Amino acid sequence: MISQTAEYALRAIVFLAMNPGRAHTTQEIADTTKVPAAYLSKVLKSLVKAGLIQSQRGLGGGFVLSKSPDQLNILEVLNAVDPIQRIRTCPLGLQGHGTVLCALHKRLDDATALIEQSFADSTIADILARPTQSTPLYERPPTKDGNPCAYE
Amino acid sequence: MISQTAEYALRAIVFLAMNPGRAHTTQEIADTTKVPAAYLSKVLKSLVKAGLIQSQRGLGGGFVLSKSPDQLNILEVLNAVDPIQRIRTCPLGLQGHGTVLCALHKRLDDATALIEQSFADSTIADILARPTQSTPLYERPPTKDGNPCAYE
Repeated sequence: MISQTAEYALRAIVFLAMNPGRAHTTQEIADTTKVPAAYLSKVLKSLVKAGLIQSQRGLGGGFVLSKSPDQLNILEVLNAVDPIQRIRTCPLGLQGHGTVLCALHKRLDDATALIEQSFADSTIADILARPTQSTPLYERPPTKDGNPCAYE
Repeated sequence: MISQTAEYALRAIVFLAMNPGRAHTTQEIADTTKVPAAYLSKVLKSLVKAGLIQSQRGLGGGFVLSKSPDQLNILEVLNAVDPIQRIRTCPLGLQGHGTVLCALHKRLDDATALIEQSFADSTIADILARPTQSTPLYERPPTKDGNPCAYE
């Protein structure tokens, strides 16, 4: 229901949220998120442009989150790369409708609004705090040895 | 949030529901729904294949709904042409995850399930019964002169 680009962006954001404390290169993020590096590079640029992540240059450079995971929600990530499209005017271009949607398009837009709200209500911290038997992005839960990228 | 194809399919279904009593040709449906006829033709084929509409041959032939609008919900229409994709297995292909989604993909799939349920709960009759100031597909409300295609 969300685009491949949006899903890739969420993988990258979740990776950075799970691996705080230092910057991570595109290749490092690509290796774990399994997103093709060239594609990921474009996604990261969009996330930088939207202010959700920062690029740090030089030795030890790479990307870090700009915000705390509890201040960053799923909707912001989607909107940074591939915004959810609301229906604002009649898709048929009927002049008499304009911005007054008919029942069909109102129903579709209501569903879109529902999803938008649902994503706005979910922070990245919520995702990380929600226990399931699988750890996002990793085969096994991370170890606590101070090197969060060396889990596997 | 739904595809162009899915939205076109809904326009066609709503047209047929609003204009019962006789079959309608692809061109007739295209004229009112403002869907390109060649594109619409493919959409109608998918709807026939899914059993939601029937094709009638010969003079006065065309398409009619197979079901009453109160027995036909939005989800069935979407699934006939461009099914909503649930997340059933780990999109990263992590073997340890398999069908046990991590919190990220569970959250995305939960949102998809929410939309799926919302569309399953809305029949085409519900749409037609829901008053707004705009009539689906038409500039002005249909007249009651027995010729439902001659509204405008």
